[in-house]
Amino acid sequence: MATRPMDFLNNSLEKQVLVGLKGGREYRGTMKGYDMHINIVLQNAEELKDGEAVRKLGLVLIRGDNVVFISP
Amino acid sequence: MATRPMDFLNNSLEKQVLVGLKGGREYRGTMKGYDMHINIVLQNAEELKDGEAVRKLGLVLIRGDNVVFISP
Amino acid sequence: MATRPMDFLNNSLEKQVLVGLKGGREYRGTMKGYDMHINIVLQNAEELKDGEAVRKLGLVLIRGDNVVFISP
Amino acid sequence: MATRPMDFLNNSLEKQVLVGLKGGREYRGTMKGYDMHINIVLQNAEELKDGEAVRKLGLVLIRGDNVVFISP
Amino acid sequence: MATRPMDFLNNSLEKQVLVGLKGGREYRGTMKGYDMHINIVLQNAEELKDGEAVRKLGLVLIRGDNVVFISP
Amino acid sequence: MATRPMDFLNNSLEKQVLVGLKGGREYRGTMKGYDMHINIVLQNAEELKDGEAVRKLGLVLIRGDNVVFISP
Amino acid sequence: MATRPMDFLNNSLEKQVLVGLKGGREYRGTMKGYDMHINIVLQNAEELKDGEAVRKLGLVLIRGDNVVFISP
Repeated sequence: MATRPMDFLNNSLEKQVLVGLKGGREYRGTMKGYDMHINIVLQNAEELKDGEAVRKLGLVLIRGDNVVFISP
Repeated sequence: MATRPMDFLNNSLEKQVLVGLKGGREYRGTMKGYDMHINIVLQNAEELKDGEAVRKLGLVLIRGDNVVFISP
Repeated sequence: MATRPMDFLNNSLEKQVLVGLKGGREYRGTMKGYDMHINIVLQNAEELKDGEAVRKLGLVLIRGDNVVFISP
Repeated sequence: MATRPMDFLNNSLEKQVLVGLKGGREYRGTMKGYDMHINIVLQNAEELKDGEAVRKLGLVLIRGDNVVFISP
Repeated sequence: MATRPMDFLNNSLEKQVLVGLKGGREYRGTMKGYDMHINIVLQNAEELKDGEAVRKLGLVLIRGDNVVFISP
Repeated sequence: MATRPMDFLNNSLEKQVLVGLKGGREYRGTMKGYDMHINIVLQNAEELKDGEAVRKLGLVLIRGDNVVFISP
Repeated sequence: MATRPMDFLNNSLEKQVLVGLKGGREYRGTMKGYDMHINIVLQNAEELKDGEAVRKLGLVLIRGDNVVFISP
């Protein structure tokens, strides 16, 4: 059975995800919500550089056009 | 319960937020309004570079396509 | 009461504004008009670099997709 | 009375304008036409670099997404 | 018979694909889903640099506007 | 009488045009067709760098979002 | 008779084409399909750098927003 992009996002709700952005920044946190533009809301989010946490952001909205990938 | 991106923005009204833009500039201020493009209006806004306030802007409209993240 | 982006623009009509563009250029002038793309018309506009006026443009139309912020 | 972006363009018909593009190139010529994307047609157009005419283009269509500003 | 882009994507379901992104990063994995924006879901995905696997991502959603090419 | 962008393109059919792209590349050829995105088809097209023909392409489709200007 | 962009693409079906992308990469292959975004499917595709084949990709989908030109 196919897992379409919106299925993937729906299945990721309340789960830990890694979000890679253009330019290489990454965020890790719990997916609390999304919309069809792939704008996403993370909880307990940390900003990573080269895999290291560099800042705690708590709740954060990431605008979809910055997103390269999302992975559990 | 999910917190969709528009819920996040609505919950942030009248609260202090940090807004990260493409290129690394950041703004801190009180969220006064937003729309579906994630254009946002901040009050008592300060422009930050490397976490330091470099300019006071008071009321400011930020065009949504520049936004990377918004966080309380 | 919320100040949505279009409210902000409407409230700025006939007032002095500072407009920051992608790449760092800034314009200062009197807001004469706008539209939903945040295309804006300034009167008595000056182009600024590093806060210094480098050129007088008089009336000027700025295409919205260049805009980063608008502030009184 | 407000001068909206489309009013500005309409008022500029048959007048001399300066058009600034992303990347810094500028064109000067007589505005012969435009559309809602701010695609514009100039007559007797010259390409400028650092304020100096570097090429005569005669009639020219400039695609709107390159435009930063238009000024008389 | 023509193979339109959406046919190509549909034919690639459950198959191994190589996905090239803007900036040169590449992903290899099993295509589990896609949508009309060419957002795609890969399973058992690996991130490649210069043809070498540099990271295992498992299931991953890649946002379509980053995609340059997809190939079996 | 105004010459709107689509009038300009229609008047250019079967005529020699110079097409400037983002990044500075230019093409010269006979305009054979266009659409509302300013995608254009040139015949007997040559690619130019610094005004010199560097490659003959014959018939060529240029995607509109690359176009900066079109001139006879 | 005009050759509009979609005519050009339709006439290119089953023919050898050269596809130039933003950033300078080029692909050569047989056009198997396309859509209105100029997403295209090539068969027996080769990736070229400076005119030299650097990789064989077989069947490949190229996302339209990367395309600069397509030529027989």
